Amino acid sequence: MKILVTGAAGFLGRRLIQALLLRGSLTDRAGQSQPIRQIVAFDMVALEGIDDPRVTAVCGDIADPEVLDSLIDASTDSIFHLAAVVSSQAEADFELGMRINFTATQSMFERIRLLGTCPKWVMTSSVAVFGGQLPEQVRDDQVWAPQSSYGTQKAMNDLLLADYSRRGFVDGRSLRMPTIVVRPGKPNLAASSFASGIIREPLNGQPSVCPVALDTRLWLMSPRLAIENLIHGHELSGAQLTEGRVINMPGLSITVERMIDALRQIAGAQVAARIRLERNPAIERIVGSWPGSFCATYSRDLGFKADEAFSAVIQQFITEYLPG
Amino acid sequence: MKILVTGAAGFLGRRLIQALLLRGSLTDRAGQSQPIRQIVAFDMVALEGIDDPRVTAVCGDIADPEVLDSLIDASTDSIFHLAAVVSSQAEADFELGMRINFTATQSMFERIRLLGTCPKWVMTSSVAVFGGQLPEQVRDDQVWAPQSSYGTQKAMNDLLLADYSRRGFVDGRSLRMPTIVVRPGKPNLAASSFASGIIREPLNGQPSVCPVALDTRLWLMSPRLAIENLIHGHELSGAQLTEGRVINMPGLSITVERMIDALRQIAGAQVAARIRLERNPAIERIVGSWPGSFCATYSRDLGFKADEAFSAVIQQFITEYLPG
Repeated sequence: MKILVTGAAGFLGRRLIQALLLRGSLTDRAGQSQPIRQIVAFDMVALEGIDDPRVTAVCGDIADPEVLDSLIDASTDSIFHLAAVVSSQAEADFELGMRINFTATQSMFERIRLLGTCPKWVMTSSVAVFGGQLPEQVRDDQVWAPQSSYGTQKAMNDLLLADYSRRGFVDGRSLRMPTIVVRPGKPNLAASSFASGIIREPLNGQPSVCPVALDTRLWLMSPRLAIENLIHGHELSGAQLTEGRVINMPGLSITVERMIDALRQIAGAQVAARIRLERNPAIERIVGSWPGSFCATYSRDLGFKADEAFSAVIQQFITEYLPG
Repeated sequence: MKILVTGAAGFLGRRLIQALLLRGSLTDRAGQSQPIRQIVAFDMVALEGIDDPRVTAVCGDIADPEVLDSLIDASTDSIFHLAAVVSSQAEADFELGMRINFTATQSMFERIRLLGTCPKWVMTSSVAVFGGQLPEQVRDDQVWAPQSSYGTQKAMNDLLLADYSRRGFVDGRSLRMPTIVVRPGKPNLAASSFASGIIREPLNGQPSVCPVALDTRLWLMSPRLAIENLIHGHELSGAQLTEGRVINMPGLSITVERMIDALRQIAGAQVAARIRLERNPAIERIVGSWPGSFCATYSRDLGFKADEAFSAVIQQFITEYLPG
């Protein structure tokens, strides 16, 4: 199989490529397991640190039609489309967000439609498509009401994916991902950055600020399950997707207070004491607009998995990313 | 005020222009009533039969950027965007549907964003954005799950309208219209064509085929109320739109059997006997996927109106369109 991964140099992209290389095979559209012969690893920045003859790293602008033509051809069997401009950037620069988050996706779909090859396609959508008046637990039939340009662009992608799949142009699956925690590396400008920061920084001996109220409820998924679910989404057959191609992922619903409790239990009071509470109204407004819990009945029925305990999520980070 | 109406030569477009000319004024964004000085009446075919110095008829391709630049300028105060390719056509010709129903709308929004003038904008969306598993009565928070390219394109327009409005690029309102009944003229290829046909043809002394089961429930609005609601949607202030810019219209929920009963009561058994029942599985499949009833709580709270009795809807057609 020849696989395209966009956003390959990002946190999820790199982990996905490593998991695919380790796995060695994927199920094709005919339901047959096929060896992975080539992964085209595309990003705007260079992919470093993955040295495997099956990986072809390509750098470029995903919104450039010539680049797209070279990325996707008749031999492309599967696509994992992860490339995106993050929410805060799409809000600050409307044109950039539309171009990368929506127009590039639309151009990729069009390229595929004109090729007529109907590859498998897995992409990440976002809980940012929801907003406004929300019930305590979001049902699978909850209306989309994005309160950001990022959420709008993701919802438009979801609509295109569903229609292109219905018409047989692509065999698409869009996974609405929870906030991925614990991310390694440094804090970023995402409003959700603190959700990883309040665990990662204290474990690294650093101070960390919690900018939201302790009873704020988050909808989380660990990096390991995120990758497992992306691959599971690929492996499902089209016939199994009886309730549609856009799937709210299961997740772990937990308050910030319980997250800190779990950290204290695992690493001790001294580590947990490195978190300073300092509420930030701007971040609270954004994070407060996200649903903290989903029914996710459809995705559970399809076999997607959620983390069961936050302590295991912390343990996963310690094992994978903490030195020693 | 200078007003642009797209789809001006269509059934709703013509009636809207006549209503605006009669009314003579609209409320501008500052909440002031302003005389209507010019209506740019745009369509791909010539607008005939409206002779008023305030109307400038323009013919062209709405997806042509040069045409758009000439249609919308800094002096455009309000836009009624009704132009669309109908559902069956958008399903048969994917590229045409995307180009007219989505890309043209997106280009108009972009033209407005770059002008920076934030005009009022009213457009018609459709109940075709809904599909899949639906409750008996569709709530305002029901997820969109279009089962057609037409519904997909309308839903994408709705998302753009909401985000462009949130960002202050346009002062938009999208009205999700029920099936408009009774339309004058001839049957067309729309799956809903029979809903007007079973009333119109018998009253004109012609036979008519009812292709769906008698207990099929439809969601209807009369032409007169459709125009009233379009203008009402324009007249509301942005501050009143507290639950968003995309509004499921109220309507009349009625079975086909009750529609025929009403015709019999008004025009007699002989007229109603001109309807022949001949179920058509293709039409039943499409019509059966549409919701037959909506809560429409938000739109009622905003003062949009529904027809109360189907007998009055028939009477409206007789008065307006039957000779003598």
